[in-house]
Amino acid sequence: MESVEGPKVCVIGLGSMGLGMAKSLVDAGFAVSGYDIAPAALQQLAQFGARAGSAVADAARDADIVVVVVVNAAQTRAVLFGEDAAVAAMADGGVVISSATMSPQDAKDLSARSTALGRPYLDAPISGGATRAASGELTFMMSGPADAIAAARSAIDAMAATVHVLGEEPGIGASFKIVNQLLAGVHIAAACEAMTFAARLGLDLERVYEVIVGSAGNSWMFENRVPHILAADYTPHSAIDIFTKDLGIVADIGRGASFPTQLAGTALQMYLMTAAAGMGRDDDASIARMLAQITGVDLPRPDGAR
Amino acid sequence: MESVEGPKVCVIGLGSMGLGMAKSLVDAGFAVSGYDIAPAALQQLAQFGARAGSAVADAARDADIVVVVVVNAAQTRAVLFGEDAAVAAMADGGVVISSATMSPQDAKDLSARSTALGRPYLDAPISGGATRAASGELTFMMSGPADAIAAARSAIDAMAATVHVLGEEPGIGASFKIVNQLLAGVHIAAACEAMTFAARLGLDLERVYEVIVGSAGNSWMFENRVPHILAADYTPHSAIDIFTKDLGIVADIGRGASFPTQLAGTALQMYLMTAAAGMGRDDDASIARMLAQITGVDLPRPDGAR
Repeated sequence: MESVEGPKVCVIGLGSMGLGMAKSLVDAGFAVSGYDIAPAALQQLAQFGARAGSAVADAARDADIVVVVVVNAAQTRAVLFGEDAAVAAMADGGVVISSATMSPQDAKDLSARSTALGRPYLDAPISGGATRAASGELTFMMSGPADAIAAARSAIDAMAATVHVLGEEPGIGASFKIVNQLLAGVHIAAACEAMTFAARLGLDLERVYEVIVGSAGNSWMFENRVPHILAADYTPHSAIDIFTKDLGIVADIGRGASFPTQLAGTALQMYLMTAAAGMGRDDDASIARMLAQITGVDLPRPDGAR
Repeated sequence: MESVEGPKVCVIGLGSMGLGMAKSLVDAGFAVSGYDIAPAALQQLAQFGARAGSAVADAARDADIVVVVVVNAAQTRAVLFGEDAAVAAMADGGVVISSATMSPQDAKDLSARSTALGRPYLDAPISGGATRAASGELTFMMSGPADAIAAARSAIDAMAATVHVLGEEPGIGASFKIVNQLLAGVHIAAACEAMTFAARLGLDLERVYEVIVGSAGNSWMFENRVPHILAADYTPHSAIDIFTKDLGIVADIGRGASFPTQLAGTALQMYLMTAAAGMGRDDDASIARMLAQITGVDLPRPDGAR
């Protein structure tokens, strides 16, 4: 890695998304540090030339930008404001980029607290998956102060192919993301329901995929997840538990606002059924396996047998 | 229209799909006749150079191919086998192309009866909408005897951009179509749920459309139907009642086979709620209006006001 000018960037949370984002930043020439509780993730971080911190505060020391890509609002709160935490360690006036999916209200609360401590906060959820994270082609759904976005823009552009700047107020980015998750979560469950229904009708499932992808029944998620079912590969590119969480946020918002979300509620129950059957950490296409277990239909098996 | 050799083709059922199919056949040089109970549809048929029959049997007289594009299995049965009906009037050995959405069992029953009377039957549902019907760019999901498909192929190609030949047995075409309708019906309802939820969150709905279409939450139906909501234009390109019928078929199959279809069942209730609220003949994006009525959120209005 060559020595560089420009903002120092710290990435907290080195799952597949965070590692990919750190890699994109290194590739673009930024001085990058990071931290995760998993030692293996820290080793991977060091391998592509970033500094592996010994703790959150050590990683965030003097950083101009801290990107937080942990699981939820509670973890984000702990990373930012807990003991040995990021906000106190980072550069005064440095920008927080908060990318975990959370409720709009949580985003507002975290923003208020961070801003009061002199660290402008970008409500900046992401979409795109691990592959696009590693290639610097994520989509950001972002709201926050224009000057903070400008200060962080070079780092954001290193991670993103598309940056939707949706407003100045915190909570807007989170709201857009949760609408996306409502649709994505329902579409995955619908794809699994449709494929097991097709199996019950005795159809050739490879052919069903080919026909539907070219028809009005297609969705981004159908096209992306059904190949996992056809290959009987439930390696968790995105786990069932992500959607028990995200559709849980939809359900919480709906109850709080007296707003019915009938399909999202039904889909949430299907994710919970799959988690209850022991597949919470498997790929979210495992809803199809859960339905096949219950109904006895045959789905493709790992050995290629039917 | 120039005088032509080749099969005489009759189209029964001149809704927007049937009229478009008849037009495609005329444009390709076929001798085309047709019938519908609606006089206005017969006038349109005559205007582009096809022969308007005085009844089903008159339209089907000596036809080599009869295309049936009515609403459901019961209407198809009446058109083919009722008094003054198509099978008796058409040429001996002529081919029936049956394109209404129906259950696989209905397709099998109709095929058996037609075949026994010496009229090979193609189980041939369509997808694509009125615009593609008129331009000869429909998708067929087709099963039936190979020799009957070969005999009708030139006419099919005049109507279609894509022909999926899915097997020789009747019921396979119908099964593929109903899997497509399960997904399409759920995705329309999910789009309406997501857009009203977004309105409740106070988001700019035009911006939601723009962001989602480029994100993992997109579906063919979201992209196609949400513009109706944004324009407050509920002219029925495809009506709510189409999906109360098609998801009703899914529900019937599911009950008959002890196979749960949780999302399709929930979506069916949303279509029924919309029909119950008096919008059964309006565009299927009217689920959004129904949800807005119930919840009090503001959707775009016809005058552009919000």
